[in-house]
Amino acid sequence: MVSAQVTFSEISPSEFFYRNRDLAGFGNPARALYMASRELVENSLDACETAGIVPEIYAKITPLNPNAESADPRAYVLRVQDNAPGIEPKQAPNAFGRVFYGSKFKLRQARGMFGMGGTMAILYGQITTNKPVKITTSVDGKKFYSFTMLIEIQENKPSILSEETMEGEGNTGTSVEITLQGDHLRSSQKIADYFRQTALVSPYANITYVDPLGRLSFYSRATESMPPPPQETKPHPHGIDVEAMRRLVRDSDEKTIQKLLIENFHRVGERTALKFLEFAKFNPQANPKSLTNEEIVKIVDAMHKFGDQEVKQIQDERRVEKFLAPDASCLSPLGEEILRAGIQKELQPEFLATEIRPPSAYSGFPFIVEVGLAYGGKFLQEGRRLFRFANRIPLLYDEANDVAWKVLNEGIDWKNYKIPENAPIAIITHVCSTKVPYKTVGKEYLADRPELERELKNATREVLRQLKTYLSRKGSMEMVKRKLNIYGKYLPLIARFAQELSQANRPPRYRGLIGEQAQAEGAEEKVEATAEGQAVEQKQEEEKQSKLEEFANV
Amino acid sequence: MVSAQVTFSEISPSEFFYRNRDLAGFGNPARALYMASRELVENSLDACETAGIVPEIYAKITPLNPNAESADPRAYVLRVQDNAPGIEPKQAPNAFGRVFYGSKFKLRQARGMFGMGGTMAILYGQITTNKPVKITTSVDGKKFYSFTMLIEIQENKPSILSEETMEGEGNTGTSVEITLQGDHLRSSQKIADYFRQTALVSPYANITYVDPLGRLSFYSRATESMPPPPQETKPHPHGIDVEAMRRLVRDSDEKTIQKLLIENFHRVGERTALKFLEFAKFNPQANPKSLTNEEIVKIVDAMHKFGDQEVKQIQDERRVEKFLAPDASCLSPLGEEILRAGIQKELQPEFLATEIRPPSAYSGFPFIVEVGLAYGGKFLQEGRRLFRFANRIPLLYDEANDVAWKVLNEGIDWKNYKIPENAPIAIITHVCSTKVPYKTVGKEYLADRPELERELKNATREVLRQLKTYLSRKGSMEMVKRKLNIYGKYLPLIARFAQELSQANRPPRYRGLIGEQAQAEGAEEKVEATAEGQAVEQKQEEEKQSKLEEFANV
Repeated sequence: MVSAQVTFSEISPSEFFYRNRDLAGFGNPARALYMASRELVENSLDACETAGIVPEIYAKITPLNPNAESADPRAYVLRVQDNAPGIEPKQAPNAFGRVFYGSKFKLRQARGMFGMGGTMAILYGQITTNKPVKITTSVDGKKFYSFTMLIEIQENKPSILSEETMEGEGNTGTSVEITLQGDHLRSSQKIADYFRQTALVSPYANITYVDPLGRLSFYSRATESMPPPPQETKPHPHGIDVEAMRRLVRDSDEKTIQKLLIENFHRVGERTALKFLEFAKFNPQANPKSLTNEEIVKIVDAMHKFGDQEVKQIQDERRVEKFLAPDASCLSPLGEEILRAGIQKELQPEFLATEIRPPSAYSGFPFIVEVGLAYGGKFLQEGRRLFRFANRIPLLYDEANDVAWKVLNEGIDWKNYKIPENAPIAIITHVCSTKVPYKTVGKEYLADRPELERELKNATREVLRQLKTYLSRKGSMEMVKRKLNIYGKYLPLIARFAQELSQANRPPRYRGLIGEQAQAEGAEEKVEATAEGQAVEQKQEEEKQSKLEEFANV
Repeated sequence: MVSAQVTFSEISPSEFFYRNRDLAGFGNPARALYMASRELVENSLDACETAGIVPEIYAKITPLNPNAESADPRAYVLRVQDNAPGIEPKQAPNAFGRVFYGSKFKLRQARGMFGMGGTMAILYGQITTNKPVKITTSVDGKKFYSFTMLIEIQENKPSILSEETMEGEGNTGTSVEITLQGDHLRSSQKIADYFRQTALVSPYANITYVDPLGRLSFYSRATESMPPPPQETKPHPHGIDVEAMRRLVRDSDEKTIQKLLIENFHRVGERTALKFLEFAKFNPQANPKSLTNEEIVKIVDAMHKFGDQEVKQIQDERRVEKFLAPDASCLSPLGEEILRAGIQKELQPEFLATEIRPPSAYSGFPFIVEVGLAYGGKFLQEGRRLFRFANRIPLLYDEANDVAWKVLNEGIDWKNYKIPENAPIAIITHVCSTKVPYKTVGKEYLADRPELERELKNATREVLRQLKTYLSRKGSMEMVKRKLNIYGKYLPLIARFAQELSQANRPPRYRGLIGEQAQAEGAEEKVEATAEGQAVEQKQEEEKQSKLEEFANV
């Protein structure tokens, strides 16, 4: 007989991610420094936007021992501070010290998707330096609750080492300070890119970043208009699964199935509920508690099919009964104004086009695709660049795995747009959704869901069409200019000949002719854009000066 | 004052992966059917190999309603059965019904790395069909414990619906039966590839797979020799982190630091411990419990640096003090015999080369790279193919993200090897390690750790060199053949002229000459390989017949 020598054990969620920290993007000191900065900044931005507060973010990375001889990787102190509403003192330790405890387990657009980034950053700091995290938070700007803690990894709970409450006068908000092993040499570029691109896509935020060498980057807000805060939403029938339906039936107090559907699902009204239950062959008045397991499976199955089936069967019918598509009012896209302002500010292109697609959905989750195109200008170099964003996060790693990369490189026939091979182009894609289809916990690239691919393709084609038009106008304008050059060269001669022939005292007035023609064939767009760019530039320089002073006192 | 409207909640590990099931590869019905099959088969193979049992695996996917009109995706029953030692009845429900509960949280080479694949498959089945999983297991081949259960996702615990114990006479082992929504149409190719490649890399296993259309594939064992079972190992000082060291200090009963190091670390003996503690400036006789947090950080830091530092400082010294590299005796590579047998059996190439690299390590985890190359034969088509394996798992998705793909496409200068552009080549890479550096929970591709990249590159170059030699020999052989053709054409004429000139009765004996020369310049290898291939083929056909009959009775 062979004996079963296998031993079993249980580990905590903290322990799991401690053992497999590369899954969350904390695989090595370089990547970890980038990830930690990013996770804390994203938590801060989310907290501000949920509350409708215009964000003011300070981030600073300092070497732990500035005089140490040792080379990278070494220890850094990372501090991120915001002006969000703060966290109640009794919630704070758990919010930061427990994996799977958080405020993000909802159907709502947010940068954070898995509710564990902040805790992972703290956990990583602890296991590489054994230093506690220091958190200060205030919900009223008067009492400031401050504490240091470690995570008890095996228990998945916070262990508070010290705490105090101070009184004062200031802003609400939270500050988090982590000591962690990092490799700034190998991550400085990515971290700088991260802040620059975050500024591009959140141009209503003031973001200040001081790197380990003491260099300050200040990204000032280019607009005060902030997108409306994202709303929480109910699940759509197309995205529901049997488990979720079972829970609804268990927890709901509704007396009829019809009412259960109306109260708990997105965009299901009385009529739709009735039509659906007729299709699914359920009695609308039946009590939900009477549903058997088999019936729950059947009803969920019917939810996924309602609409599809009828389209196939009854081609002629005027109005096909189906669920309404998810409403995107719960989403908070950038919108054209903010997208343009961000691109203008950071890239200052010669030409700029944007396309905001109408809302769409995959598996019951609504999403909106926004695409910008920047062409030329003094910052863009030759060649095609892609800037990817999802729920306002810049995605900087693993570009070739992303659906947007696939669309640009495989889904677009570039020859159609008559754009020169090495034209200086940047494509900016932004996907916002209550559930961004990330393929890893590290949030680096999006899965190629067909619906998403389609929307990205349509939006990209639209901005490319605009560029094509611009380039062809510019082309004809240049032709006009060339003609004018010829006019300019020969008109004086012709005028002189005319004068001599007519024996007049002075030649005809020909100078006005050259100017008029030039304006008639269009160069306004370029001039306007450049003026806008200069204004932004100047404002930035002024604010940077004042920030430098302000930050020196923090 | 702005109020903090944020609400916090905690979710269980099951709940987390239920919500984010795409992270584990269960994103859609096609991928889920593939993943579920794979996770169960891998658990079975791991269980057999850990116990040193030659695996017999049956896997079967059946439509739940064979007569249903509805198109894919629809419900399937997946059953996987093995001859492993079985699981103790009191452990079984937790082993399958709890995320983060398992037997894989160890430093040991195993297919499973995260200890959650089986539970994820069950969870996915439950949330798509609401059907319980049925498990039967026996640890003695006499008592068979059978139960059905659901997972209480919010609690992360199993809920047993029914159980019974039967007596009988049979084998030890476990059978798991899941009902899940799947899309066989879109996954049949991947599932078939998975079984074929698993057979290639585990040629000591008998694997039978029956697909939903009732088609049986039988992969019979090509060798009885099984690699030794992988051993559990202690952590290497280079891979230790502060948290792990803190736990060792807390839990250990050793009275001195020196003893603590010797007892708990991989390949640290008395002398190495002394030399290291001298380098780190710790008293070897100090009590571990007396170490402060700062000292623990310092000792771990020194562990990562021991060796490096001295190499730089004392270039002249004969023997540099450092930790011994991780010992790979805990690993279980395929070895040349098994790798050759697998490739021969599944690809039947014209030429076959293998290279087993010596053990190496990254971050304190030992690993071994094995590479095979197959060229020509009747199965390989034109072009280059890559078959990736890690701890004997075929990796079938996201190839372009894998370090092996990077090496083949960016790290090798193919022109050096004078291999024709479209030569029919397959490169087979196998990485085994106590910790495979996967980048996702779905286990699809390996991170590009520099050490791993280096070993893959070296191994690939070696097999390519062998192919180059073979091709150039083959080339000169073909030249010989061409020459022989000319001899064959002209020799009879020359012989006839000679006969006529000498007026002899018969021409000289020239036929022998042609044959001798051909053999002298080498075609043995090819002939031998083909004979080996035919033998295997015939044996397979015989066994397939007998399996078909056997399986009909299961």
